[in-house]
Amino acid sequence: MIDSARPRRLSVLGSTGSIGVNTLDVIEQLGGRDAFEVMALTGNGNLDLLAEQARRTGAKLAVTADESQYMALKDLLSGSGIDVAAGTSGLDEAADMAAGWVMAAIVGTAGLAPTLKAAARGADIALANKECLVSAGHLFVEAVRHGGGRLIPVDSEHSAIFQCLEQDQRHALERIVLTASGGPFRTHSREQMANVTVQTARTHPNWSMGLKISVGSASMFNKALEMIEAKHLFDVRPDQIEVVVHPQSIIHSMVGYTDGSVIAQLGVPDMRTAIGYALTYPKRPALNVDRLDFAKLARLDFEAPDEIRFPAIRLARTALERGGLQGAILNAAEETAFNAFIEDKIRFLDMADVVETVMDAMVEGVPADTIEDVFAADREARRKAAEVIAAR
Amino acid sequence: MIDSARPRRLSVLGSTGSIGVNTLDVIEQLGGRDAFEVMALTGNGNLDLLAEQARRTGAKLAVTADESQYMALKDLLSGSGIDVAAGTSGLDEAADMAAGWVMAAIVGTAGLAPTLKAAARGADIALANKECLVSAGHLFVEAVRHGGGRLIPVDSEHSAIFQCLEQDQRHALERIVLTASGGPFRTHSREQMANVTVQTARTHPNWSMGLKISVGSASMFNKALEMIEAKHLFDVRPDQIEVVVHPQSIIHSMVGYTDGSVIAQLGVPDMRTAIGYALTYPKRPALNVDRLDFAKLARLDFEAPDEIRFPAIRLARTALERGGLQGAILNAAEETAFNAFIEDKIRFLDMADVVETVMDAMVEGVPADTIEDVFAADREARRKAAEVIAAR
Repeated sequence: MIDSARPRRLSVLGSTGSIGVNTLDVIEQLGGRDAFEVMALTGNGNLDLLAEQARRTGAKLAVTADESQYMALKDLLSGSGIDVAAGTSGLDEAADMAAGWVMAAIVGTAGLAPTLKAAARGADIALANKECLVSAGHLFVEAVRHGGGRLIPVDSEHSAIFQCLEQDQRHALERIVLTASGGPFRTHSREQMANVTVQTARTHPNWSMGLKISVGSASMFNKALEMIEAKHLFDVRPDQIEVVVHPQSIIHSMVGYTDGSVIAQLGVPDMRTAIGYALTYPKRPALNVDRLDFAKLARLDFEAPDEIRFPAIRLARTALERGGLQGAILNAAEETAFNAFIEDKIRFLDMADVVETVMDAMVEGVPADTIEDVFAADREARRKAAEVIAAR
Repeated sequence: MIDSARPRRLSVLGSTGSIGVNTLDVIEQLGGRDAFEVMALTGNGNLDLLAEQARRTGAKLAVTADESQYMALKDLLSGSGIDVAAGTSGLDEAADMAAGWVMAAIVGTAGLAPTLKAAARGADIALANKECLVSAGHLFVEAVRHGGGRLIPVDSEHSAIFQCLEQDQRHALERIVLTASGGPFRTHSREQMANVTVQTARTHPNWSMGLKISVGSASMFNKALEMIEAKHLFDVRPDQIEVVVHPQSIIHSMVGYTDGSVIAQLGVPDMRTAIGYALTYPKRPALNVDRLDFAKLARLDFEAPDEIRFPAIRLARTALERGGLQGAILNAAEETAFNAFIEDKIRFLDMADVVETVMDAMVEGVPADTIEDVFAADREARRKAAEVIAAR
């Protein structure tokens, strides 16, 4: 499948999450050890899976982000010949392994430093971590440019745009159309949304996902983050980013050109297509995933997002227009608000209010010079958000 | 708009039809005489328009296909300094003018010889004439390859596929999905279709078109011809060509890859997008055409084509599987049957019966060695079709 004489060296940062598990499945489908040499795998709490993955793939290094689990992982891998490391320095070591392709799938700000490191040394980055672009967009894009590797997005919307946007037609890019499922409250009134519980917010109509992503889909904060990511990935102005609600999630996103043409990428909801695309780019792999049957699909619907019921879209636009660290602030405030929502401290619609209050309180417009600036803004936004939540 | 120092030289074969008129509009939008040097324009009966176009664009040569109109055209262009020619030799002369880009928009078998000539001398061919591929596919593709120019399709479906099919991803092409509006009889029963009149058959739901194309849309014979064109344009097997009915005609066609991804091209029904794409390929132009508004679109529908009510789809597949001159035979028999239908000699559903009878009577499987073979098969199929019609 892969047209290289020797196996391609790769690492998976965050191999035990759903992106990581699917990445290893794609690697297996595309020839496994005959085609790929796994350098480093990293995980967090799920040591058994991490150890099993490391043995199965013949990884050179296995890293748990949880420092306290070092000995436990060491035990699980004893006799395997696989190196073991842990904590921040372990993640650094994993990022530094000589892999030409790195899946960056560590969730949260913990993923920032190792992904930046891999980018800086010139690895191709398959990007699933959102903070790299949302919180540290300029820094990260700069690090990739300096390093000289490729940046290939992995989440379905940005992969779709990447697939639709031909390099020699960038000059004619007019708009990006991000599709959004609209989540479980798409047809709810604002009054109904005010009273939703964590349980109803977590049921996404098309994808089965973790709680954070499900609630983010229900509030459309996921889409807000994707808008910010799109800005950095595709170097577009805020007004070139459009969001359209498309409940079936079959069109994963689109690109509009200056000749009136719109190019769309469609598929069944299966993240392996985007992962495979990132792994073999610019070639496409042959994958065992379901194919679309248009007669069975029968119809695709579209509607404009309602920014009254889903203020996240408006807040993303504000963050984009303000620039600076507003992306990091939006992200940190939203995570804090999300935690308060699932702990029943605030209600569903309060999340956007908290985020907006924190964003407005931290308008400075200073771009981040270093990753420390990002971390500082992130901490400050979380502190302020907690204050706002406590004061309600 | 066009990044070349000197104006690009082009000719429009068939400039007075709707493709030709739109081509000149696109040329005007993209800089007119500053960007393009019009070498030859050709038309048929509409001499006034042809002469006006030639004067407006400063064409070097104007040609009427109708030999008897030579003097009339000469008179209309007297004093303009524009050369005039007529008939077959005039069309040949037009095809031979030193234009690097030729719009091949002459309707019918009359377009075959001049388009082949332009292809053979290495011009980039923007192809709107269908006989080149339907009737003489192998010969034509071979002529383009030998000439060394590009072949860029102009009708909306094939332009869509061309736009979706990246050159470096041909290896991963799995299927082509041609969309079809389904025409005015999409929801008719076969009994209702048996009794339709020319008047109802000519009303296409989305595009305003000539009678031939409207009836071809109603019978889906247009789609049958497009299936055969797609085979030659994109070098796919018959089983890789799928047809899906999509009444809104917003998705112009799609390409499915081996990774499960489907890439689609969408747009308002405006042929200038495809013409502009062909003119500036691989760049995209900036065109003043309407943009898609997805919220306004609201929905897109899909259904499988019913090959009992629309046997044209099945006949195309048969022609593709048999190969040889069956494409030319299908096309010629269908034109003859169409003429009989509009003259009220046969009924709507009889058209497919006539075509099938002629195709079955002429199964030889011999590919065309020369264009004369194509013309001979075309004549013979028309003769046989007339026989079949007379015998009914």
